[in-house]
Amino acid sequence: MWKEAVFHRPEGPYAHPAGPRELRVRLRAKRGDLFSCHLFHGDRYGGEEEGDILRLEKAGSDELFDWFEGVIPSATRRLRYVFYLEGEEGGLWYGEKGFAADRREAGAFQYPYICEGDLYRVPDWAKDGVVYQIFPDRFFNGDEGNDPEGTDPWSAAARPRPDSFYGGDLRGIIEKLPYLEALGVNVLYLTPIFLSPSNHKYDTTDYYRVDPAFGDAETLKELVRLAHQRGIRVLLDAVFNHAGYGFFAFQDVLQRGEDSPYADWFFIEDFPVVTTPRPNYETFANGVWTMPKLNTAHPEVRAYLLDVAEYWTREAEIDGWRLDVANEVDHRFWRAFRDRVKEVNPEALIVGEIWHDAGPWLQGDQFDSVMNYLFRDAVLDFFAAGRIGADRFDALLTRTRMLYPEQAHFAMFNLLGSHDTERFLTTCGGRLERMRLAVLFQMTYPGMPMIYYGDEVGMCGGPDPDCRRPMMWEEERQNRELLAHYRKLIALRKELRPLRRGDFRTWLVDPLRNLYGFVRWDGESCVGVLFNNSPHEHRVEVDLHPFGGAEKLRDALSGKTIDAAGRSRMPWTLPPYQGAILTPVE
Amino acid sequence: MWKEAVFHRPEGPYAHPAGPRELRVRLRAKRGDLFSCHLFHGDRYGGEEEGDILRLEKAGSDELFDWFEGVIPSATRRLRYVFYLEGEEGGLWYGEKGFAADRREAGAFQYPYICEGDLYRVPDWAKDGVVYQIFPDRFFNGDEGNDPEGTDPWSAAARPRPDSFYGGDLRGIIEKLPYLEALGVNVLYLTPIFLSPSNHKYDTTDYYRVDPAFGDAETLKELVRLAHQRGIRVLLDAVFNHAGYGFFAFQDVLQRGEDSPYADWFFIEDFPVVTTPRPNYETFANGVWTMPKLNTAHPEVRAYLLDVAEYWTREAEIDGWRLDVANEVDHRFWRAFRDRVKEVNPEALIVGEIWHDAGPWLQGDQFDSVMNYLFRDAVLDFFAAGRIGADRFDALLTRTRMLYPEQAHFAMFNLLGSHDTERFLTTCGGRLERMRLAVLFQMTYPGMPMIYYGDEVGMCGGPDPDCRRPMMWEEERQNRELLAHYRKLIALRKELRPLRRGDFRTWLVDPLRNLYGFVRWDGESCVGVLFNNSPHEHRVEVDLHPFGGAEKLRDALSGKTIDAAGRSRMPWTLPPYQGAILTPVE
Repeated sequence: MWKEAVFHRPEGPYAHPAGPRELRVRLRAKRGDLFSCHLFHGDRYGGEEEGDILRLEKAGSDELFDWFEGVIPSATRRLRYVFYLEGEEGGLWYGEKGFAADRREAGAFQYPYICEGDLYRVPDWAKDGVVYQIFPDRFFNGDEGNDPEGTDPWSAAARPRPDSFYGGDLRGIIEKLPYLEALGVNVLYLTPIFLSPSNHKYDTTDYYRVDPAFGDAETLKELVRLAHQRGIRVLLDAVFNHAGYGFFAFQDVLQRGEDSPYADWFFIEDFPVVTTPRPNYETFANGVWTMPKLNTAHPEVRAYLLDVAEYWTREAEIDGWRLDVANEVDHRFWRAFRDRVKEVNPEALIVGEIWHDAGPWLQGDQFDSVMNYLFRDAVLDFFAAGRIGADRFDALLTRTRMLYPEQAHFAMFNLLGSHDTERFLTTCGGRLERMRLAVLFQMTYPGMPMIYYGDEVGMCGGPDPDCRRPMMWEEERQNRELLAHYRKLIALRKELRPLRRGDFRTWLVDPLRNLYGFVRWDGESCVGVLFNNSPHEHRVEVDLHPFGGAEKLRDALSGKTIDAAGRSRMPWTLPPYQGAILTPVE
Repeated sequence: MWKEAVFHRPEGPYAHPAGPRELRVRLRAKRGDLFSCHLFHGDRYGGEEEGDILRLEKAGSDELFDWFEGVIPSATRRLRYVFYLEGEEGGLWYGEKGFAADRREAGAFQYPYICEGDLYRVPDWAKDGVVYQIFPDRFFNGDEGNDPEGTDPWSAAARPRPDSFYGGDLRGIIEKLPYLEALGVNVLYLTPIFLSPSNHKYDTTDYYRVDPAFGDAETLKELVRLAHQRGIRVLLDAVFNHAGYGFFAFQDVLQRGEDSPYADWFFIEDFPVVTTPRPNYETFANGVWTMPKLNTAHPEVRAYLLDVAEYWTREAEIDGWRLDVANEVDHRFWRAFRDRVKEVNPEALIVGEIWHDAGPWLQGDQFDSVMNYLFRDAVLDFFAAGRIGADRFDALLTRTRMLYPEQAHFAMFNLLGSHDTERFLTTCGGRLERMRLAVLFQMTYPGMPMIYYGDEVGMCGGPDPDCRRPMMWEEERQNRELLAHYRKLIALRKELRPLRRGDFRTWLVDPLRNLYGFVRWDGESCVGVLFNNSPHEHRVEVDLHPFGGAEKLRDALSGKTIDAAGRSRMPWTLPPYQGAILTPVE
């Protein structure tokens, strides 16, 4: 046994409550090294030989490791457990003290008490969410009366400059709610809408004022109310890492220097504050002088920003927040943020912008989920760029799933692109078949698919600002086939519960022919999804075991059915860059 | 290279700020597998090739792993890093995406921003602390006027029953402050002192009232004031996991049942509340009916207990809290507890009672440290029971150090025993030479040595209640040699700064002869400590490298000196069960 490869710690992704009286436990081992992994568990105050045994299932693998997992009940909520691992050379106990041939020598891991106050609760509705990201200046101009001076004419052929304005606004979003409802999305995430001199509004001048170019508080409330009537939730963008240059407190520091009562709200190196040759204060990124970093450890700053969050959550009845540059703000602030927001709206969703491993923020005390850029990296490498094979793709997905407690996964913002990236179709080199297959994956994988406005009609665009072109509304320019593909897949996701709420297991990994597949099941029914990420037609033999004796399977995409009765494997033909969504037929 | 053995995650013990602009980074690898480990680090927004390189040092090993560590500065506080690992078959990059021959492919780990609000700050005084634990009913009877009815006569020959009283009180502690000062301790930890029917008082009736058998609030304040005058700090015991049967809120539930406004303060299964045949409410441990578990997730309960903590911290000017059954109370509660207590007294120390891996509580947001039972386990196995060799002992110590961020270690309550365990001398089978050697270890290892009252004069006792005998004050019964040993070692710890504040490295591990040694250095001076944990005299050759060219070394215990000039190794003779504390002589 490769003892050095075995990893467990009774916390975080490796041990977390699945509910008030159950614990999800994971163990990592060298790939292929363990024949089985059993968990001996009991009450901490019970006798050593009391308790139960659970065989952990292999939940996934990457190139180096297998992960085993299972959920154990605990009537008393107080847990003690030890693993029994079996490999080629026999069995070993593994506990807090390490490996031993004798159970007692191995010691026991402790999960001392499943505390109500620490449960990782994610709003249930998130599991059913399909998100649409809107960059308001570029979505639709519903009110030409509020267009900023120098607004450029709306055109899908436009190539935005960093400082272009196109006149999109909240009224425009309201007018397009029927479009969004028809598309099937049920969550809108709006990039910032508060007063700011820029088109992106990540440099807030006034957190309490909707930018007049977008509307006002009443327009926002109307948007939320009308969206809710259509079953669509609305998330706003909380830009709390930094303020804008025009923010009253920063302006006061500019004017009064050290004597300003707001001097400690920022990180000022010396006075007077200057912006050239480089800002002598901390900013977002590398010296972006329009975005002075906020000192969120300062009690007044914290109170100010939490009041802002509470105000809009209550006032506009929004459904949650996406948190900008969430990883550069203190955990302490985010914990207080969660408490305040959930107090007003326990069903609010909190999604952090984190591009890397987000483990420290996904423990239940801060975010519900994050913008899943690790998902995007994998999808981009496999489907768009064809840079990795099905085996590496599966490994990357497994690793990302195993980074976090289970709760986070069903609420992840699984994106193909955003206002901060090149558009996905552009990364695909315009090859629609690749994009279509990636969207099939996005719409069937655990987590909330997030569509960046316009992707669904085939918009292209390089990195910022090119990815922020005005929405292509002219039907003759839109790719209507792609739009239909999106609509169909969203509808299928809604129809097939396992795609939203089911567990995930890899089903097929064929790196030679670049085929991939997984199954999702929710305890009642099972859906299998297949992908042929290659330019050739391939015939696969799929394992019917997950469907447990179904008579017939049907592909929800092509409508094709095949007889499965009495078989353990079934042939299926996949055309180039096509997939299938297989469900049992009653 | 054994890739499967390599572990790093940019959080917790593996990456934590060492200060406002520096990060401590650790990496784990298979023991002996890496020739070197380098860290390439830079600003997150800087170019990939910018930045610096740090060679990580091997900080320790256990049977399976080596740990490498180092501290990297960051002017901007925003870090990105990747490891370069060299082994027999060459070098590999290791980053967030895994292993790769190409740096870019490996990806970078991110520590996005060292936030002021998240820094793990432990009161500096803790590094110099030597703790003395007092069980007040058993320490000294300073006021016979407040003795409970049925108080037994004081005698070191007494064998307490679970319900015995001996009349010890706060006045008694005050009277013995000169004794404690002469011993050299500078922190007192008192087990609970608030109103309760028991002798141990872990079943609180009134959190706001000092038990009259111990004195009153004025006596407590006097004790703290007088202790402070002698440079001695005072910690109280916070029993917030459960209340006592007589607690007003529980009494109200007993009387009014479901209609009680306090019904949700506890975990009641059904009404009316009964205690037999078994309590129908959650309790401490297995049905201890006198200790109903508190629902610390309830806002009113939280507010009540936090008020209690604030009240005594402010009112009695105490120096911190030891937290009873800390691991069964929610993290959320402890975070709020830390905030409230540190607001009143930023220098307060918070120490949790946790017997197992305490990782989730030692992240800087909850406890400063814990009662280090993992330390005790190792010391007991090596010195008292002789159950493990020097190699296993070193492995256990290293593993425990690597479980937590660096900050926790210097403030650990390193105990040999407590009111909850058999006394250490009893575990030693009365063999004083073993206890003496263990105490030498305790007094020279990183962390605060904690002495359980009476251990220093040779008290024995089996598990609770026998470990709670009245303090042996009769000098003719006390082991004065052992007491002198304690005094000398505490004095040496005070004299030799590296023993309190220095880094730790293993210096000698000889499992065949059962010899052990380590060095501590604080950047200015170095101390080497040796242990012969065997019944035979042994000669060792110690590596003089850590002393960097000292002319002479002196053993602070025996006074013996030896010429070290121009040598890289030096012979040293250790009598059976003896040690040495070597320091350079100017």
